[in-house]
Amino acid sequence: MATTSDPALVLNAGSSSLKARLVAADGQVLWQGRRDGAIDVDAKDLWREWLEPALGPDLESLALVGHRVVHGGDRFVAPTRLTPEVLAELTDLVPLAPLHNGPSLRLMAALAAWRPQLPQWACFDTAFHRTLPEEARTYALPEAWRQQGLRRFGFHGLNHQHISEVAARHWAAQGRCGPLRLISCHLGAGCSLCAITEGRSVATTMGFTPLDGLVMATRCGAIDPGLVLHQLRAGVDVADLENQLNTQSGLLGLSGWSADMAELRKIVVAGETATDGGRWAGARRAIAVFRHSLLQGIGAMAASLGGVDGIAFSGGIGEHDGALRQEVIAHLAWLQPLEVLVVPADEEGLIARLCRQAAAPR
Amino acid sequence: MATTSDPALVLNAGSSSLKARLVAADGQVLWQGRRDGAIDVDAKDLWREWLEPALGPDLESLALVGHRVVHGGDRFVAPTRLTPEVLAELTDLVPLAPLHNGPSLRLMAALAAWRPQLPQWACFDTAFHRTLPEEARTYALPEAWRQQGLRRFGFHGLNHQHISEVAARHWAAQGRCGPLRLISCHLGAGCSLCAITEGRSVATTMGFTPLDGLVMATRCGAIDPGLVLHQLRAGVDVADLENQLNTQSGLLGLSGWSADMAELRKIVVAGETATDGGRWAGARRAIAVFRHSLLQGIGAMAASLGGVDGIAFSGGIGEHDGALRQEVIAHLAWLQPLEVLVVPADEEGLIARLCRQAAAPR
Repeated sequence: MATTSDPALVLNAGSSSLKARLVAADGQVLWQGRRDGAIDVDAKDLWREWLEPALGPDLESLALVGHRVVHGGDRFVAPTRLTPEVLAELTDLVPLAPLHNGPSLRLMAALAAWRPQLPQWACFDTAFHRTLPEEARTYALPEAWRQQGLRRFGFHGLNHQHISEVAARHWAAQGRCGPLRLISCHLGAGCSLCAITEGRSVATTMGFTPLDGLVMATRCGAIDPGLVLHQLRAGVDVADLENQLNTQSGLLGLSGWSADMAELRKIVVAGETATDGGRWAGARRAIAVFRHSLLQGIGAMAASLGGVDGIAFSGGIGEHDGALRQEVIAHLAWLQPLEVLVVPADEEGLIARLCRQAAAPR
Repeated sequence: MATTSDPALVLNAGSSSLKARLVAADGQVLWQGRRDGAIDVDAKDLWREWLEPALGPDLESLALVGHRVVHGGDRFVAPTRLTPEVLAELTDLVPLAPLHNGPSLRLMAALAAWRPQLPQWACFDTAFHRTLPEEARTYALPEAWRQQGLRRFGFHGLNHQHISEVAARHWAAQGRCGPLRLISCHLGAGCSLCAITEGRSVATTMGFTPLDGLVMATRCGAIDPGLVLHQLRAGVDVADLENQLNTQSGLLGLSGWSADMAELRKIVVAGETATDGGRWAGARRAIAVFRHSLLQGIGAMAASLGGVDGIAFSGGIGEHDGALRQEVIAHLAWLQPLEVLVVPADEEGLIARLCRQAAAPR
């Protein structure tokens, strides 16, 4: 029989990868792995081929399994123990985030069928944004539409919360406290900003879906709704529109050849050649528009915070593109002195901790 | 025969009104008037019933007629003399701004038929934004879509230019010069911000259409494109979507009862009553979301300018809602000291001047 001192397994099922981590009660990482590609919904394959040999006997004595779930809607604003009722409610939310919620739910259901006794918990990327004030979560839409639940949810909340906690510890160690104002920049394949004060999200760039806000790897971010209407009138159908805006836009659409900031940066640094087929010009454009969108978003978050004490970069681009960080900081010289942090993303660590806290007897 | 010293007639045909002004060569306003309601395309009615008696003999000796045209596309970035070819090209642009360009063009055509000798000129609300740098005018869309001309144009350029000129004169009179950074806030039924330095637009909130950017009287401003896709999948058709986002959103959608900031403000000041049927709560919500959108937009413009020296308010809300100005300024205390200007909108005065300059022999 597993106890709370046993390890927790964290599963982070995205649209095109599955990350797993085995975490001891003291937070130590015992094992971690990643499988790229679409998730196989057959639990048997998943466990037998990958997790069973990796986890070995630990698989029989897990304290709990913690899942990352992208969209918790209005209902799920804290880590939640999975029950058949909860699973049914989560299934109702799938249309809000089909690419992201779908794989987690299939994995939960498969695990529940295979090991019904294993306690499963879900942590939500929307939950950290439950503190958004009304003016920050409300779109200026017709009343009937607002009452249908069309509002800004915000995403990447698990990493924004992790970043907020790291920054708070860092500032506390310096003897700084009080309501410090932080802009958390999660810049990965998806990108979002969060304005945080006193550990609470007060504004964020992603919205009803993870398509809103900043320019991303293949997503367009915020664009003129009139432009969407124009394309519909021009005969683009809804499925094509959705595909183009989610998978063919962003850095990929701007550069014309790559969604990978590291590749784009490499070409820009190498310089233009007569034979590059426009790749240098495309890379330069993509980085310039991405940076512009990021800077405008930072300005908007600063306005919501009433100033900025610190800015934290995280995610693949945020952690590894030092040139981008330097350019952004140089463009922010007009702000009062601010501290720059680089915080490696750690959603899995936070999920393990949040689930253990929530599962602990009160 | 009319000469350049004769008065100019300025016609500003909007979706639901026609404003006219007779302007002397020295800029003096000789007469002005306004007719509300949709424009009657029959030139005979228009002139006989309204302008002919008002203008009297001046009608026979106009130096020129200057029209405001909302959308100039990529082609029209300066005041342009109307020819049959120009009229045809402008007609091709109507789908980009059907509510706004349509009435101007019908009026031009009717005037040209009635008085072929009368020199007609067009000034464009997009023209001032011709200086937007690539990163500010480019959406992160697929290459093929960008090549179709899907880009940020920006609007309200005639008023933003007027505001920029007033601010520059104001600063010059104080002996301040150099590249001062101005945020121009056009807040009327439509709302947009423009970041201006050295008299040039470097960023703006409206986009491909006048639906982008800030929350407005009945327009939603920038919303998550994923939310638009969600509504389409939920069965809302394109015409309904367009109508809801353009005419039932903004302050009207948020308050549930009024698109008029002055009315909303009056109710908020009067306080909540048990019998107001939620009007106070709706008005409070509408003002809060409008202000939040405005503040975030100002932060974004400040980021594009690298700081702010002055902020100018114009348009019905910008000029007359002192409480809003005070609240915005109070929320901007984190910016370096900035000067606040209130500049009455004067598109007609600028149109007369721009057309005369363009028509003058070189």
